[in-house]
Amino acid sequence: MMNIGIVGLGLIGGSVGLDLRTLGYRIFGVSRREQTCQKAIALGVVDEASPELSLLSTADLIFICTPICDIIPTLEKLIPFLSPSAILTDVGSVKIPIVEEASQIWPNFVGGHPMAGKTESGIEIAQLGLFEDRPYVLTPNENTPLESVKKVEAIARLLKSQVYFCEPYEHDRAVAWVSHLPVMASASLIAACMSESNLAIVKLAQELASSGFQDTSRVGGGNPELGRMMAEYNRLEILRSLHSFRDEIDKFIQHIEQKNWQSLEQKLKHTQQNRKLFLPHEN
Amino acid sequence: MMNIGIVGLGLIGGSVGLDLRTLGYRIFGVSRREQTCQKAIALGVVDEASPELSLLSTADLIFICTPICDIIPTLEKLIPFLSPSAILTDVGSVKIPIVEEASQIWPNFVGGHPMAGKTESGIEIAQLGLFEDRPYVLTPNENTPLESVKKVEAIARLLKSQVYFCEPYEHDRAVAWVSHLPVMASASLIAACMSESNLAIVKLAQELASSGFQDTSRVGGGNPELGRMMAEYNRLEILRSLHSFRDEIDKFIQHIEQKNWQSLEQKLKHTQQNRKLFLPHEN
Repeated sequence: MMNIGIVGLGLIGGSVGLDLRTLGYRIFGVSRREQTCQKAIALGVVDEASPELSLLSTADLIFICTPICDIIPTLEKLIPFLSPSAILTDVGSVKIPIVEEASQIWPNFVGGHPMAGKTESGIEIAQLGLFEDRPYVLTPNENTPLESVKKVEAIARLLKSQVYFCEPYEHDRAVAWVSHLPVMASASLIAACMSESNLAIVKLAQELASSGFQDTSRVGGGNPELGRMMAEYNRLEILRSLHSFRDEIDKFIQHIEQKNWQSLEQKLKHTQQNRKLFLPHEN
Repeated sequence: MMNIGIVGLGLIGGSVGLDLRTLGYRIFGVSRREQTCQKAIALGVVDEASPELSLLSTADLIFICTPICDIIPTLEKLIPFLSPSAILTDVGSVKIPIVEEASQIWPNFVGGHPMAGKTESGIEIAQLGLFEDRPYVLTPNENTPLESVKKVEAIARLLKSQVYFCEPYEHDRAVAWVSHLPVMASASLIAACMSESNLAIVKLAQELASSGFQDTSRVGGGNPELGRMMAEYNRLEILRSLHSFRDEIDKFIQHIEQKNWQSLEQKLKHTQQNRKLFLPHEN
């Protein structure tokens, strides 16, 4: 059975550890903070933990679960300690900037993105089964050793994820639509409501806000650092989706300005129908 | 104890009936469809029901719970049957176009908007306590008899709603921000995702869509007819909020185009903070 290494013991890294340790794998965890290392051991997330990357010298498969901006620097620091056959994989929510660089530094790298998360973060809320029935995207390129891809895929399936394979650019474009654009649209909604200059209206709006506002604004009220990183690392795709989004807003404005009520209702019928294609299992 | 009349036996009218009937009021319901009248009696929503407005000749307080576009026509047809002291109120989600006209036709009219709802509609899903802890906005004007306002307020409090008083334009502007704009923003998100011309990407996006997309797109996948009516009856306020929203989208685009990552993160910090002002009770 493989030894598993995890760098970055937060919600994702911790939950990977919990699941695989339960399945009998030996888990080695690295976190910059000694306190997190101790917590990881106490929570049963890892067998051994250390702030030193040298702990991972016997690991066969290493998950890099740091924030996106630390993935490549972490990988570079890892190189001296790796066994030559070690497989590296990451869990970053953007793939082009990671995969291109990482596979040049360490050819035995398999880009990955398990799409699970919670509003909160941190090892304290790591949980068994976090990835169950969630998408797990793998983005190998033509030089990635097939054997390594199969090993990472097998682990993703042990986590009970739905595994998808695609090119890094396909991943980045798809998540721009369904994951990154919603954050910017949702944040813009909150910002627009706060732009109202009549403070009595703002107060009333706050009192009257209910489930519709709550749901539509949820991801716009999320982690600002994460939102910034999405935009920084998936810049071109987010811009592309934001421009399309603005075009759609313009169409709504136009229909309403011109009192094209039938076209507006038709458009809303389409969005009602099309939403179901994205959420076939919602009741 | 007052006799209560309800015109329009759907989710809202039916739920008003259920609650007030349980409190001992005698409820008279009018629905265009005989079948709905029979259902209303069978479900215990009303004591008597009929497709004829003449049923309401003994009603002291009448709730008009029809779709927005039918409120004024219904009110006009009601006049010949009303006792001179009868109080009329409505439950429409837009107030300026209703209140101005209604109070000229029948001075004893109190504009209202109980802000409760479900995705589904119809008398079958009417429920006890639908309005509990939900906002109930009343928009009397300077000519509305105070005694009548107090009676409607008392009923709203019996429904255990949170009662708010404001001017019709304040209501319409506030709900444009937190209720109507979210629908258009959310629908634009769905439309933007469907505008992707690479069908493999659309398919992948549909497979990867998760809770973020689900929540942000929810109200954009709602009843198209309702969305159209919001826009038709609250046209100027919706346009005003849509223009502000587009300005905010433009700011996000600008920050990302110019790689102003600090400004972007700052903006997302503000939206994270400001969202809490709208949802103080969310955990």
